Amino acid sequence: MELTFLGTGSGVPSKSRNVSSLALQMHQERDEIWLFDCGEATQHQILKTTIKPRKITKIFITHLHGDHIFGLPGLLSSRSFQDGTTPLEIYGPNGIQTFVETALSLSQTHLKYPIQYYDLQDGTIFQDDTIKVDTMQVIHGVPSYGFTIQEADKTGHLLPEKLKAFGIQPGPLYERIKREERITLQDGTVIERDQVTGPTIFGRKLAIIGDTLPFDNVSDFVKDADVLIHEATFIDADESLANQYNHSTSVQAAQIARDANVKQLWLNHISSRYVPQDLKHELSKLTSIHPSVRYVSDFDSIPVEKVVE
Amino acid sequence: MELTFLGTGSGVPSKSRNVSSLALQMHQERDEIWLFDCGEATQHQILKTTIKPRKITKIFITHLHGDHIFGLPGLLSSRSFQDGTTPLEIYGPNGIQTFVETALSLSQTHLKYPIQYYDLQDGTIFQDDTIKVDTMQVIHGVPSYGFTIQEADKTGHLLPEKLKAFGIQPGPLYERIKREERITLQDGTVIERDQVTGPTIFGRKLAIIGDTLPFDNVSDFVKDADVLIHEATFIDADESLANQYNHSTSVQAAQIARDANVKQLWLNHISSRYVPQDLKHELSKLTSIHPSVRYVSDFDSIPVEKVVE
Ligand SMILES: [Zn+2]
Ligand SMILES: [Zn+2]
Repeated sequence: MELTFLGTGSGVPSKSRNVSSLALQMHQERDEIWLFDCGEATQHQILKTTIKPRKITKIFITHLHGDHIFGLPGLLSSRSFQDGTTPLEIYGPNGIQTFVETALSLSQTHLKYPIQYYDLQDGTIFQDDTIKVDTMQVIHGVPSYGFTIQEADKTGHLLPEKLKAFGIQPGPLYERIKREERITLQDGTVIERDQVTGPTIFGRKLAIIGDTLPFDNVSDFVKDADVLIHEATFIDADESLANQYNHSTSVQAAQIARDANVKQLWLNHISSRYVPQDLKHELSKLTSIHPSVRYVSDFDSIPVEKVVE
Repeated sequence: MELTFLGTGSGVPSKSRNVSSLALQMHQERDEIWLFDCGEATQHQILKTTIKPRKITKIFITHLHGDHIFGLPGLLSSRSFQDGTTPLEIYGPNGIQTFVETALSLSQTHLKYPIQYYDLQDGTIFQDDTIKVDTMQVIHGVPSYGFTIQEADKTGHLLPEKLKAFGIQPGPLYERIKREERITLQDGTVIERDQVTGPTIFGRKLAIIGDTLPFDNVSDFVKDADVLIHEATFIDADESLANQYNHSTSVQAAQIARDANVKQLWLNHISSRYVPQDLKHELSKLTSIHPSVRYVSDFDSIPVEKVVE
């Protein structure tokens, strides 16, 4: 799991930050890329990375403001043009389907793959054996949603020495032991999986909170996340602006991260009114609230790691 | 009059060419910028120029394919965000209004200025004292239009020596002579304007032909243009592809320019399959058909000049 930030600005593109999009790359885990938001020129940003649009299998849209969706028709077209033929799922607030279909039909764009749309509603929106996605409505004047991505826990690694002590050599039996909690050998010996594996590998929890005012319930939703990506359009000194425009300040995001026992906080959706020096100064204030906080930049590509306390 | 090429590629953006847009800057003539097509990330390209979105007063859309319109909602939003408050006119094929209004309304984008839409139909679509815009449908599978921009001819410059011979010194009378074809001085002397001015300054003619198959009537439409910007998606060797996709080759564009007595031909809308070496080689073939031909690149900014034979 690796997060690649394609656009970390707010509202309008600037020379240093594009409008919103981030890619969750899961090459090892499932050979898929999931995209969160798709502001204008997301496909142009992708051109400067190793991301292949045809690997994108799901797109999650936090809300319908233009800086989060105006890149969608172009990206969908290019995914088709670049030999994307596998189905795509789009999860977003009601209206996203109308937006995409109007753009594609008026432009007579015929995609080589089907799109399945899912309207967002609080709760689990996707789940399989290895991963679960939950969503929760946040507060932004228009319907806007946060997401958590929770990996399932995995059985610990097989321990060859312990298996050897039972007389088991590497081979087909290894696979059975991985699958089953308990097996009985031909000589009648019963092996509990726990006896021959290392500690459970706990899944990672990633939380992505887009445009929102801060509010209490969000802490429960992002509880114990290994990484929280939270909007921080404004700095603390501009809290009244943040309020006025339904956004959060960096300090509010840090307080949520602290209250929710989040391990790492990455601040996103930064207003272009701030120069790097402003953010550097702000960061010194934030570390007294939460020990592990950073501002992200366009093209930052950061592995999502389990933080063990 | 200066043309700034914001996107000279075809279909999908590449690292070297963005999708279609070009800006006609008329700072001296009328302090306005007119935009022709607005592919995705046109506003991002504009960020790298001195163009101010609020100076854009008219946008002409050749056709509704995505690479010509997907940048429109974002540009319109940013024009508003960047204090554009003056009205904007959009000329395009039927459907452009639905595209823009759907995008703006679903994203709850509220512009600070009104937009007036004009559906394109063959003929004169705009005219005032100094400039005239004509359009003509071309052949591209979907309704697609070419444009000519024709400046009005202007009276020649006043000639101070000739005026002095009539006893006229620089002053208010100069302005009257500029306005009126004939004036009578207090002593009864009649002065014809022609007697005291240099030769008529002929207006420039600019022709912009977007995506199209070549066809005979286009030569009449672009007749005697000082500059013809014509699509040349394919090179001569790929004429069958050009045919298949409703596009022109560079040689076809050069033949039109020759037949129409066009002074300069600038080739645009270049497929990303060609490397610079291909185009260089092609150019050597083209100059035997038309003496003044060039391929344009993103960010080329070229004055439109009257070519006097
Ligand atoms: Zn936003
Ligand atoms: Zn095109």
